[in-house]
Amino acid sequence: PDAAAIQAAQERNGQLTKPPGALGRLEELAIWVAGWQGNGRPELNAPQVVVFAGNHGVTAQGVSAFPAEVTEQMVLNFQHGGAAINQLSKAAGAQMDVHALELDRPTQDFTQGPAMSEDEVVSALLVGWNAVSEGADLLVTGEMGIGNTTSAAALFLALYGGEAEDWVGRGTGVDDDGLVLKARVIREGLAANPAVSGNGLEALRCLGGREVAAMAGAMARARVLGVPVILDGFISTAAAACLQDSVPGSLDHTVAGHVSAELAHANALDRLGKEPLLSLGMRLGEGSGAGVAINILKAAIACHSGMATFAEAGVSDG
Amino acid sequence: PDAAAIQAAQERNGQLTKPPGALGRLEELAIWVAGWQGNGRPELNAPQVVVFAGNHGVTAQGVSAFPAEVTEQMVLNFQHGGAAINQLSKAAGAQMDVHALELDRPTQDFTQGPAMSEDEVVSALLVGWNAVSEGADLLVTGEMGIGNTTSAAALFLALYGGEAEDWVGRGTGVDDDGLVLKARVIREGLAANPAVSGNGLEALRCLGGREVAAMAGAMARARVLGVPVILDGFISTAAAACLQDSVPGSLDHTVAGHVSAELAHANALDRLGKEPLLSLGMRLGEGSGAGVAINILKAAIACHSGMATFAEAGVSDG
Repeated sequence: PDAAAIQAAQERNGQLTKPPGALGRLEELAIWVAGWQGNGRPELNAPQVVVFAGNHGVTAQGVSAFPAEVTEQMVLNFQHGGAAINQLSKAAGAQMDVHALELDRPTQDFTQGPAMSEDEVVSALLVGWNAVSEGADLLVTGEMGIGNTTSAAALFLALYGGEAEDWVGRGTGVDDDGLVLKARVIREGLAANPAVSGNGLEALRCLGGREVAAMAGAMARARVLGVPVILDGFISTAAAACLQDSVPGSLDHTVAGHVSAELAHANALDRLGKEPLLSLGMRLGEGSGAGVAINILKAAIACHSGMATFAEAGVSDG
Repeated sequence: PDAAAIQAAQERNGQLTKPPGALGRLEELAIWVAGWQGNGRPELNAPQVVVFAGNHGVTAQGVSAFPAEVTEQMVLNFQHGGAAINQLSKAAGAQMDVHALELDRPTQDFTQGPAMSEDEVVSALLVGWNAVSEGADLLVTGEMGIGNTTSAAALFLALYGGEAEDWVGRGTGVDDDGLVLKARVIREGLAANPAVSGNGLEALRCLGGREVAAMAGAMARARVLGVPVILDGFISTAAAACLQDSVPGSLDHTVAGHVSAELAHANALDRLGKEPLLSLGMRLGEGSGAGVAINILKAAIACHSGMATFAEAGVSDG
């Protein structure tokens, strides 16, 4: 981030026609975006939403309430404009792109060994790296992948420890037996992949999925480009956690868009030190929570860059 | 609300390409708007933000960090497009109107007797009643009035009891001595106006302000027109509380846009049974929190009315 732009934004913020701090988090967000854009009066004109899709071998363990073919069906729905994230992207004025990653070649079942080879995870990271549009000024990474809440739970268990039960949730809608099964499956995943503990990139390879790796690649690319990123829910945060574990500080350009109804998500955000912008009980994935949160960032920037100063408006500043 | 439209919206919601309930509060919001619009597939194309401004005699007691002339200065700022609510209205695609209510004739200091006569409060209610645009499909009521957090705190003390200290906050930025002063002033206000306890309309007349009454009038008008209303912060909620106290159920067409950093606001929303959509530490008034929340309702409606069903998209529904 650009220290001069942050200072310019702070000075401008102090001159705007409002009591100091009265816009709360909107003020912090605007100053934060100013730092990443290198502009004390930033703009948000070109948000981009990228949705990555992948299939998971671990679905063979029966961990999802939906059949695996739904991943591909939903990709078609994204392409035809029918999914929630299509509507949310449009409502927020964002470009939306979809990348399906070898859906006909699911990852390996991680209870039996690594989900991906090194070549496979690098290839998925590169899909994400290359998916960030030149000219995008804000990025949301979303995902679709039947079975991927199980993958994300396994990643958090590997990175943060605790009990398997702490990290599993209902995903698209499994019952109590399903929760027990998911906990057993992620324990087995860690047992089958002993190198993952406390190793973000190895965990990503062994327990993640192609869409999870692609999200991580896109977040890393955005960091290089200085593009702020809104994290979405449980899966998006798992991708982020792998980056943070590998390179501390690598999430400084990210903000948590929302806290999901998937209960472990709040714990995961705590571990990352991220305070969510929204808490609306959403648990859809696709980038949907972050898609709603684009509007919060746009509101913050609209105020910061559009408001009159006390001097311009002839208002007494107390 | 229209029961058939609610049922149609619930049925549609169950067929959309997402796991049941996965959009969380967005689903409830869409169904709620459907009921008020009488349309199972509602639209939000014409949100309206109305900002009312009034001056308060109680500023003679030194309760605000800003001088009273700031009310009029800010009205000019609204008219010239320089305030936060201008930017937020524009960002949310909302029409914005400003009504200044006899700024050169502040209300009476309520520590000495009623703030307004019956004629005055009715006149202010009518300004609000007449301010709702024909064709608006969503309403936000905002306000500007130096001294009006003191007026709102007095209203909550009159309606809900407790200690004066429970209801006062820092407003635009008073210090600890200012808090003690505000508590004393609202106690004196209740002592000087003994008829206000548990009488919403009498409290509005004796302790409210012209802009507070106008907000109440606009909310009531919206109820008659079947237009959903997003409540804003502490002052807007005080206006709403006066209505609810007079006619239980009169806030069924309202949703709390946000919870303010003004601490007593959370308690006030609890008393009204309203769960806020946002919690961003905002405390500006003007309708700003509700202005941001317009985007949440638009997101909800965009998903509900724009998404494909399982059948349309050819997606397996689990």
